[in-house]
Amino acid sequence: MPRRLLAEGLGAALLFATVIGSGIMAERLADGNDAVALLGNTLATAAMLVVLITILGPVSGAHMNPAVSLVATLRGELKPLDALAYTAAQLGGGLLGVVTAHVMFDLPALMIGVKERTGAGQWLGEGVATFALVLTILGTVRHRPAWVPVTVAAAITAGYWFTSSTSFANPAITLARALTDSFAGIRPVDAPGFIAAQLAGALLAALVARGLFAENDRR
Amino acid sequence: MPRRLLAEGLGAALLFATVIGSGIMAERLADGNDAVALLGNTLATAAMLVVLITILGPVSGAHMNPAVSLVATLRGELKPLDALAYTAAQLGGGLLGVVTAHVMFDLPALMIGVKERTGAGQWLGEGVATFALVLTILGTVRHRPAWVPVTVAAAITAGYWFTSSTSFANPAITLARALTDSFAGIRPVDAPGFIAAQLAGALLAALVARGLFAENDRR
Amino acid sequence: MPRRLLAEGLGAALLFATVIGSGIMAERLADGNDAVALLGNTLATAAMLVVLITILGPVSGAHMNPAVSLVATLRGELKPLDALAYTAAQLGGGLLGVVTAHVMFDLPALMIGVKERTGAGQWLGEGVATFALVLTILGTVRHRPAWVPVTVAAAITAGYWFTSSTSFANPAITLARALTDSFAGIRPVDAPGFIAAQLAGALLAALVARGLFAENDRR
Amino acid sequence: MPRRLLAEGLGAALLFATVIGSGIMAERLADGNDAVALLGNTLATAAMLVVLITILGPVSGAHMNPAVSLVATLRGELKPLDALAYTAAQLGGGLLGVVTAHVMFDLPALMIGVKERTGAGQWLGEGVATFALVLTILGTVRHRPAWVPVTVAAAITAGYWFTSSTSFANPAITLARALTDSFAGIRPVDAPGFIAAQLAGALLAALVARGLFAENDRR
Repeated sequence: MPRRLLAEGLGAALLFATVIGSGIMAERLADGNDAVALLGNTLATAAMLVVLITILGPVSGAHMNPAVSLVATLRGELKPLDALAYTAAQLGGGLLGVVTAHVMFDLPALMIGVKERTGAGQWLGEGVATFALVLTILGTVRHRPAWVPVTVAAAITAGYWFTSSTSFANPAITLARALTDSFAGIRPVDAPGFIAAQLAGALLAALVARGLFAENDRR
Repeated sequence: MPRRLLAEGLGAALLFATVIGSGIMAERLADGNDAVALLGNTLATAAMLVVLITILGPVSGAHMNPAVSLVATLRGELKPLDALAYTAAQLGGGLLGVVTAHVMFDLPALMIGVKERTGAGQWLGEGVATFALVLTILGTVRHRPAWVPVTVAAAITAGYWFTSSTSFANPAITLARALTDSFAGIRPVDAPGFIAAQLAGALLAALVARGLFAENDRR
Repeated sequence: MPRRLLAEGLGAALLFATVIGSGIMAERLADGNDAVALLGNTLATAAMLVVLITILGPVSGAHMNPAVSLVATLRGELKPLDALAYTAAQLGGGLLGVVTAHVMFDLPALMIGVKERTGAGQWLGEGVATFALVLTILGTVRHRPAWVPVTVAAAITAGYWFTSSTSFANPAITLARALTDSFAGIRPVDAPGFIAAQLAGALLAALVARGLFAENDRR
Repeated sequence: MPRRLLAEGLGAALLFATVIGSGIMAERLADGNDAVALLGNTLATAAMLVVLITILGPVSGAHMNPAVSLVATLRGELKPLDALAYTAAQLGGGLLGVVTAHVMFDLPALMIGVKERTGAGQWLGEGVATFALVLTILGTVRHRPAWVPVTVAAAITAGYWFTSSTSFANPAITLARALTDSFAGIRPVDAPGFIAAQLAGALLAALVARGLFAENDRR
C-alpha cells in the first residue's frame, strides 16, 4: 500500500506541477495570445499524462484524480478505505506540485486563484469533460488496456479545447488550481460548482459504461 | 443492436461537440489568427477521434459518419437497414452534440450557419478529403487494424490543413455544422454540394481500395 | 507490379498535395506569422506520412521518394528497372498532387516557383535532412519495422524545423515544389543543388547504416 | 564497443543539432512570439527523440546524456570506463551537432551563449526536469520497454513547458548550448549550476525508482 500511495502522490505532484507550470510559462511567452498559450498548456499536460500513466499505472492505477478513484470504488476495484487514502495522497502530492511550480517560477509558494469560472455553461462543460474522461478510461480498459496512457491524454487534449471550462475534470486539481493566481487558476468560491459537476459527469459515465462496454457485447 | 446505435449516437455527439466546441474556443482565444485557431481545432478533433474509435470501434465500428456506413454497406459488412439506423443515430447524436457545444459556451441552442463554403475548388477539396479518409480506413483495416484510431485521426489532421474545404468529409457533420454560426459553420445552402462531393469521394475510394488492398497482394 | 506502381503514384499524389496544400492554407490563415504556418504545414505532412506508410507500405514499401528507391536498389531490395518505374510513378503521381492542390485552392494548375533556396548552408541542410531520413528508415526497418510510419513522420517533423532548408529530403518533391508559387515552393534553378545534396545525404546514410545496424550487433 | 560509441556520438550530434537548429529556425520565423517559437522547438526535439531512441536504443541504449549514463553505471548496467567513453562520445558528437546547426544557418561555427539562466527557481527547474526524465526512463524500462521512445519524448515535451528552465536535463547539452548565441543558448557561467541541479535530480530519481519500481511490486 505505501508504494501505491507514493505513486498517487508523486503522480499528482508531477501532473499538477505540469498543468500549473506550463500555464505560467505559456502565459509569459504568448504575448497575450491565449490560444497559443493553451496550445502549450495542452501539449505539456497530455505529454505528462502519457508518461505518468505508463510508469505509474502498473503500480497504483495512476488515478491522480478522486473522481476516478470514486468510480473504481463503486465498481468494486478499490476498497473504500483505500480510496480515501488515494484521495489524501492525491491532494497532498498535488499541493506539493503547486508549490513546486510556483517556486520554480519565482512566485509565492501559494496564492489564491482570482479567475472567475462559474455559470451553467461551464458547469455543463465540467460535467461533459469528466463524463468523457471516465468513459474513455472504462472503454479503453475494457477494449485495449495497453492504450490507456494514449487515450486519457487524448481525452484531456480534446477537453482543454472543446469544453467551455477547459476540462479540469478532477476534483483534486480543482482545489489545487484554487491556490494559484495564474493562467490555470480558479477562484476558491467557484471550486464547489466545478467539483459537483465533475462528480455528476463521472457517475453518469460509470452508468453508461456498464451498458455500453458490458462483457457480453458483440459486433 | 441498441448498444451499437447507442455507440454511434454517443460517438457522434462527443465528436461533433468537439469539432464545434473547439472551434468556438479557438476562435475566442486566437485573437484573429485563424491559423492558430485551426491548430487548436485540429488537435482537439484528432484527439477525440483517437478516443472514440478506440472505445467504440469494438462496439459498433465507430463510423460516426454516413459515408463510412454507406461504404460498409456496399462492401457487405453492414445490412442496408442497419445502415439507415446507424445514420439516424449519427444525425440524432450529432444534433445533441451541437446543442451541447452551444449551451456550454452560452450560445443559443441552435443557429443557422452563415459561413459561405462553395465552389468547384472546395467541392474538389471535400471529394479528396473523403477519398483520403475512406482509403485510410480500408487500408488500415486491411493491413493493421489496431491502428485505425491513429490513422483516421491522422487523415483528418492532414485534411483540416491540405484541403481547401478543411475536410468535413462526413455528411452528418456537414448538416450539424449548418446549425452553428461559429468557426466550424457552413451555410445550409452550401451543404448539398459538400455532401455530394463527399459521397463521390467515398465511392471512388471504395473502388480504388478494391484493387489496391486486395487480399492476394504481395510485395 | 501495376499495383505497386499505383501505390507509389497515389501515395506521392496525396503526399505532395498535402505538403503544398497545407502550405497554401497555412500561409493564407497565418497572418504573416511564418512559424505558425510552418506548424500547420508540419502537422499535416507528418499526419499524412503516418497514413500513407501504414496503408501503402505493405503494398509497395511506400517510398514516394526516388532517393529512398535508390537506396533500396543499392541494398538489393529493388531491381534497377523497378526503381526506374517507381521513380516515374512518384513523379507522375506527385505532379497530379501539385495540380490537385492548386485547383482545390483556385490557383492556376501549375506555376513556377519563385522562392530562392540556395547556398552552402541550405545544401548542408538538405544533406543532413536526407541523411537523417534514410538512417531513420534503415534503423527502424532493422529494429522495429512496425514503427516505420511513426519514425518517418517524426524524422520529417524534426527536419522541417531543424534544417535551414526545411527538409525537402526528396528529389521528386523538390521538382514538384518547383511547380508551385506558394509557401512550399522553390525556384527551378535551385532544384539541382537540392537534389544533389539529397542524394549525397542518402548515400552517406546507407553507408553508415551498414556498420551501425549490422545483423550481428549486440548491446 | 566502437559501434556503441558511434551510436552515442551520432545520436548526440543529431539531437543537439535539432535542439539548436530548431531554436534558430523558430526564432527567425516566430516574429517575436516566443511561445510559438517554443512550440516548434518542442515538436522538433520530441520527434527527433522518438527517432533516435527507436533506431539507436538497441545499439547503445541511446543515452545521449551523461546523467543517464551515470545512473546506468550506478545501477550496474554500464561499466564505469564505458560510461566515460559514452560521455566523451556524447560531448564530441554533440559539439559536431552544434557546429552543423550553425553552419546550416550561415552562422559562425561556434559562439558563446549570452542568455542568462540562473537562480534558485531555474535550478529547481533543472532538478525537477532531470528527476522526471530519469524516473520516466526507469519506469518505462521496468513496465513497458517498447514505449521508451514515446515516454522520453513526452517527458521532454512536458519539461520544455512546465519547468522554468525549459528542461535542459542533460549535462552534455548544457555545455553544447553554452556554445550557441541563439534561442536555445545559455551563458557558460550559468552551466555549472544547471549541471549540478541535473545530477542531483537524476540521483534522486534513481533512488525513488528503486522503491517505486521494484521487481516485487503488485497492484
